[in-house]
Amino acid sequence: MAATAPSRRARAYAALRYPDTSHVSRRWRSIHLLVLGIGLLAIAASSTDGLPTWLTQLLTIAVLGVAFVFTAEYAVRLWSAPESPRYAGLSDGMARLRWAVSTNGAICLLAALPLFVIALGTMRADNQHAPIFCIIWVLSLARHAPAMGTLARVISNERATLTSVVVIFLMVLIIAATGAHIMERDGQPKTFGTLPDALWWAVVTLTTTGYGDTVPLTAGGRMIGSVVMVSGILVLALMTGILATGFAEEERRREYLRVWDQITKVPMFASLGTVTLSEIVSKLRVRNYPPRIIVVRRDEPGESMFFISEGEVEVRLPRGAVALGQGAFFGEMALLDRLPRSATVVTTRPTTLLVLYASDFYEIAANIPSLVEAVEREARRRRAENRGEAATVETT
Amino acid sequence: MAATAPSRRARAYAALRYPDTSHVSRRWRSIHLLVLGIGLLAIAASSTDGLPTWLTQLLTIAVLGVAFVFTAEYAVRLWSAPESPRYAGLSDGMARLRWAVSTNGAICLLAALPLFVIALGTMRADNQHAPIFCIIWVLSLARHAPAMGTLARVISNERATLTSVVVIFLMVLIIAATGAHIMERDGQPKTFGTLPDALWWAVVTLTTTGYGDTVPLTAGGRMIGSVVMVSGILVLALMTGILATGFAEEERRREYLRVWDQITKVPMFASLGTVTLSEIVSKLRVRNYPPRIIVVRRDEPGESMFFISEGEVEVRLPRGAVALGQGAFFGEMALLDRLPRSATVVTTRPTTLLVLYASDFYEIAANIPSLVEAVEREARRRRAENRGEAATVETT
Amino acid sequence: MAATAPSRRARAYAALRYPDTSHVSRRWRSIHLLVLGIGLLAIAASSTDGLPTWLTQLLTIAVLGVAFVFTAEYAVRLWSAPESPRYAGLSDGMARLRWAVSTNGAICLLAALPLFVIALGTMRADNQHAPIFCIIWVLSLARHAPAMGTLARVISNERATLTSVVVIFLMVLIIAATGAHIMERDGQPKTFGTLPDALWWAVVTLTTTGYGDTVPLTAGGRMIGSVVMVSGILVLALMTGILATGFAEEERRREYLRVWDQITKVPMFASLGTVTLSEIVSKLRVRNYPPRIIVVRRDEPGESMFFISEGEVEVRLPRGAVALGQGAFFGEMALLDRLPRSATVVTTRPTTLLVLYASDFYEIAANIPSLVEAVEREARRRRAENRGEAATVETT
Amino acid sequence: MAATAPSRRARAYAALRYPDTSHVSRRWRSIHLLVLGIGLLAIAASSTDGLPTWLTQLLTIAVLGVAFVFTAEYAVRLWSAPESPRYAGLSDGMARLRWAVSTNGAICLLAALPLFVIALGTMRADNQHAPIFCIIWVLSLARHAPAMGTLARVISNERATLTSVVVIFLMVLIIAATGAHIMERDGQPKTFGTLPDALWWAVVTLTTTGYGDTVPLTAGGRMIGSVVMVSGILVLALMTGILATGFAEEERRREYLRVWDQITKVPMFASLGTVTLSEIVSKLRVRNYPPRIIVVRRDEPGESMFFISEGEVEVRLPRGAVALGQGAFFGEMALLDRLPRSATVVTTRPTTLLVLYASDFYEIAANIPSLVEAVEREARRRRAENRGEAATVETT
Repeated sequence: MAATAPSRRARAYAALRYPDTSHVSRRWRSIHLLVLGIGLLAIAASSTDGLPTWLTQLLTIAVLGVAFVFTAEYAVRLWSAPESPRYAGLSDGMARLRWAVSTNGAICLLAALPLFVIALGTMRADNQHAPIFCIIWVLSLARHAPAMGTLARVISNERATLTSVVVIFLMVLIIAATGAHIMERDGQPKTFGTLPDALWWAVVTLTTTGYGDTVPLTAGGRMIGSVVMVSGILVLALMTGILATGFAEEERRREYLRVWDQITKVPMFASLGTVTLSEIVSKLRVRNYPPRIIVVRRDEPGESMFFISEGEVEVRLPRGAVALGQGAFFGEMALLDRLPRSATVVTTRPTTLLVLYASDFYEIAANIPSLVEAVEREARRRRAENRGEAATVETT
Repeated sequence: MAATAPSRRARAYAALRYPDTSHVSRRWRSIHLLVLGIGLLAIAASSTDGLPTWLTQLLTIAVLGVAFVFTAEYAVRLWSAPESPRYAGLSDGMARLRWAVSTNGAICLLAALPLFVIALGTMRADNQHAPIFCIIWVLSLARHAPAMGTLARVISNERATLTSVVVIFLMVLIIAATGAHIMERDGQPKTFGTLPDALWWAVVTLTTTGYGDTVPLTAGGRMIGSVVMVSGILVLALMTGILATGFAEEERRREYLRVWDQITKVPMFASLGTVTLSEIVSKLRVRNYPPRIIVVRRDEPGESMFFISEGEVEVRLPRGAVALGQGAFFGEMALLDRLPRSATVVTTRPTTLLVLYASDFYEIAANIPSLVEAVEREARRRRAENRGEAATVETT
Repeated sequence: MAATAPSRRARAYAALRYPDTSHVSRRWRSIHLLVLGIGLLAIAASSTDGLPTWLTQLLTIAVLGVAFVFTAEYAVRLWSAPESPRYAGLSDGMARLRWAVSTNGAICLLAALPLFVIALGTMRADNQHAPIFCIIWVLSLARHAPAMGTLARVISNERATLTSVVVIFLMVLIIAATGAHIMERDGQPKTFGTLPDALWWAVVTLTTTGYGDTVPLTAGGRMIGSVVMVSGILVLALMTGILATGFAEEERRREYLRVWDQITKVPMFASLGTVTLSEIVSKLRVRNYPPRIIVVRRDEPGESMFFISEGEVEVRLPRGAVALGQGAFFGEMALLDRLPRSATVVTTRPTTLLVLYASDFYEIAANIPSLVEAVEREARRRRAENRGEAATVETT
Repeated sequence: MAATAPSRRARAYAALRYPDTSHVSRRWRSIHLLVLGIGLLAIAASSTDGLPTWLTQLLTIAVLGVAFVFTAEYAVRLWSAPESPRYAGLSDGMARLRWAVSTNGAICLLAALPLFVIALGTMRADNQHAPIFCIIWVLSLARHAPAMGTLARVISNERATLTSVVVIFLMVLIIAATGAHIMERDGQPKTFGTLPDALWWAVVTLTTTGYGDTVPLTAGGRMIGSVVMVSGILVLALMTGILATGFAEEERRREYLRVWDQITKVPMFASLGTVTLSEIVSKLRVRNYPPRIIVVRRDEPGESMFFISEGEVEVRLPRGAVALGQGAFFGEMALLDRLPRSATVVTTRPTTLLVLYASDFYEIAANIPSLVEAVEREARRRRAENRGEAATVETT
């Protein structure tokens, strides 16, 4: 996007912040996950009793190493904070201060803390308070969840109905706990003797977890219990029903925006008007592929065609391989002629493809004949080439 | 809506009845939830054994205080009952009597009861029957569930299929209980010796709760148990599937009516015919925001535009803030130019916005070009202003 | 439907076979459910030990009574079997024989059996084999599940994907059982010592029932257990997802046919062509109401209008009540003027209504202006009447 | 498809590879499932202690027999490997080598292994390592899951959102385990003393399995437990919601391709253009029926018509039966006249039908009048024939 080459600091920022955009950031992501895994395992292991001293020391060193990586990450993030668009108008020092006091900055600092705690001799990996680092470290896992925003938005959109389900949940919980308490308190004073105890039973039962540590024994208590269990199923079914509905709508919107970002890179679509374009957009699907992935396989039935919006693929023909770059398309013959794929297509670089399924292709065809014509013209040209000479493109 | 200022009684009625419409009613809702929480906690705490006398007395006072609030609520509700549209043609006294004998009135009275019971010295917070108030009080929680009507309607609409699932549930239950009873009664007479005992096992198993207090031990009993567990999953899946389908349809309808109520307040839409309007209505979403909420954030990608149907927002530009009131719209540039938001927009009052997503905007565009033109004209004007001078509106 | 009055036998057949169509059949359904409940309770009670002799005798009499009712039902069904369209071309005797040897006939006979068994002195209500009647009797409950066919069709339509989920279920089950058996057999030979034992654990875990009677203790066993539990969630989610999809489609189709059966009874729609009609049909919903049910309530917001396809309603106006019969419609003013309902409408007989929601009304409006015009013309007439004189129809 | 008769080897390949296409392959599938079942049962039985020697020997022979069948299967598959389109250009030997080293080949070889192991005297059916064969054998069950590809594709398409749910799952797991460990380690050092122990509790609770072997006892631990259980419900609801959405879309696409493969066999549709055809395709459903299945039953209400794309059906009329072959259609009268079916239709051979539901028929009717005309012309002809003479076609 920037016309000049990005600075070292901008690249560091991008690598840490957008883990999917470049080779460096993907590698950083793998390292982060590995280090996180080692850290969690080391703390988990050191919580076990009776370890030999050498192992405790080794685990302490591992935790120290993990904390060192997180300290380095904190330093790089702090240094590159001025690159964030959020602190665009501010001076470097001010931007760093703002980041340091943000929630993100605080979590990063907490993740780095063990280094100093252990270095100062106050703490070892098998310390009483070491497990707390598990909680702090695992919070950074949220960065690796690509669609967390989607989940949050669905829950937010459906909050009115979800709140109602939660209110029902609470009402069933309290009424059931009170009822069971009244029924069972004389027979089982230890497990149903107080309302909080009965509430614990109600939660365990309503979520259909059913530990079995507290179980009603009287006929009345068992009847209440049965109602609570069935309510548990109903609450789960209601919640799922609400979320499924919310997801269907949100997914449609997300995909729309993802496609819109990619479609401008395909010259074929560039000339179409906004309204026509918006109709095609709703039919395309974005798929990201790493290198060396087989997209279509020769002789398999074909049910979609592909537009390359980023990257490159290799069409493997008996007569040699042909490369197709950004803006090209392939797989159209399987759609037009209803024949199996005529070649295997493999990605050579990280590639973003726009997929158009057969069912949607014909739906578009009815409304935008020009698109179908363009595809058919290209397909005719390729068929002619295939027949004429050996070393030319024969797409799947 | 009423041309004259509402009376004190009408305002009291509205505050208690429609908790979302005004500042007073929102505050009342918070107080009600707080008092309810205190009451439930006090009764829960006093059910514990061995509390010191001073704490028991404190809890008794807390319950008394809660009951006093509910008594006051009852009085106000009784006084303002004639304002209810349901008792419109009746005299004040008659309306109050009708309300007092309605279900709602009876629950309100029961909630107030402890005051008198404790005041008359017959009862303390740690009394045997105190927990019953938990049940009575928690019923009023239902008033805080905004979409309870939606849930009820979905269940009612799908009652034919849900009844079938319940019948299947009952059949599996009784057949499984009988089968397990026959298989296990000789080996485990204590837990499977009678049909009611076996029925308890079947409920616990079919809901996949699985306490483990009664477990089949014979091969036959375990086979029946396996079938029951798998049936449990199937029953849950069927119920969820039915409810998900019902929800999708109901949600579509509810939203439609909510939007219709709001759309008449936006002048831009006022001139459109009913048929055109009904098409737009199905694409808009209603969102209610409290004051001081960031609706869009500068530099974030934009995927929707907003119409203000109630309240006011502040557009924060580097050159100062601009207020937009009822009927205005913002966020259209992000849609038209596919650029990030150019300003942060914050609500200054409780505000109702109509949201139009990018995917729907272009769908409408194809059918109602006049709407898109109006939006584009306004956007052009704003862009020109932004370029020309500093202190004018630049919307996100 | 039949031009001549149905015979006594035809009415008996219809009452037993179509429980929703008439007063007699609805009463028969209530009696059947009551008798079934008494029978199940009597057998359940008599399975308890230590009952006094008089109670055992009373229960035996109850079972005898229930069996007598079922014997009578069997006799009536056998007598009226020739009315079934399935045995249309056959002689009376042949039709009865065919019914007697059908599954339905066999179940009916088995339900009647206890009468003879007990009468012959071989058996009492607290007999060892009495519980088997629970299973036989509860099978007849299936007749009261109105949408059992829908469930069966959804499962059948999705059988390919459901089979795959079942295959995954079985594979996870066997692999997990084998793995846990290998891991745990040395430590817990009693619960994991044989493959069938391990399989029982796997079923209990995969369905997330979790009795806790068999629990892995080794690290390896617990890892397998964790995978099985998560698989359990995934299997449930897959099954639900498949069924939800199937239900959405089936429900759409069922409703379509139900409406089609009713729409021909409304004269307003009779003149429309098949294609236009089929579009309206997909928007209407069928609702069956018993007598004395409030369909719409005065002053509540209205979001739908109603067409009467069967039965009668009473419109309660301040100036008196007005009856509307088959073919009439009401509730259109709330749609056209967006005002609350102007009257309460109550059913006077079992009534079938076709509901048209506001959201769908306007969608139809765009395509079938003639329908909207007809509704508006009627609404204008009613409004004029309301203004003009007191005793005329003012619909909600 | 091939013009010449397929060779013996090609038929062997097809029978093993496409179990649904022919009589031989369906029989092979039954044998495979039977042999697999015997093998699994034999190994399960031999894991039980204290069996008599003769039974152990019998089970060893059974396992040997099963392994022999799998060895024979391996040999046939190896021999017919050159027929696979995947190894099309290679020599016979090379194709066999490539298949032998593929995953599929390796699993087939492992399934055959017991023969040699037992034959060499190193192992008996009650051997310690025998259960491993259960795992190997059960893997081949995956071949019998028709829609496994659909499941895989749905999960792959929704992987972004599913990954987020898994990340949430892991975060809740680790945070809850750490929290419960800190709360409970002093009170219950045996079950919550180490982090791995606490993690086991967290998995058992988050999946709502709830064995009850480890249960929190402190108030803090129980609060964490309650949050974990409710999170478990939420995770399940999220996962289900995501998969339901994915399934709805995938199912639509799969069906589209299945219909497309069949529709070309019906002459009626052959003359239509690609775009018109693609619209019809999206409304048809493919149904495969074995021989002697009743497709429609006389006097039942009809809600769909059928096109025969493969096979043959028999229309059973009072005046005799009429056969309808590929390309014919039936059941259209029920759609056009809204009357019950006028005849019973039974398949005589394995038959593939294209189903068109009433709701979709009228939707198509609006857009493709020519199709409806063709159906109505045929229906008129049949009605005339029915009236005129006795032995001609009268379709349902």
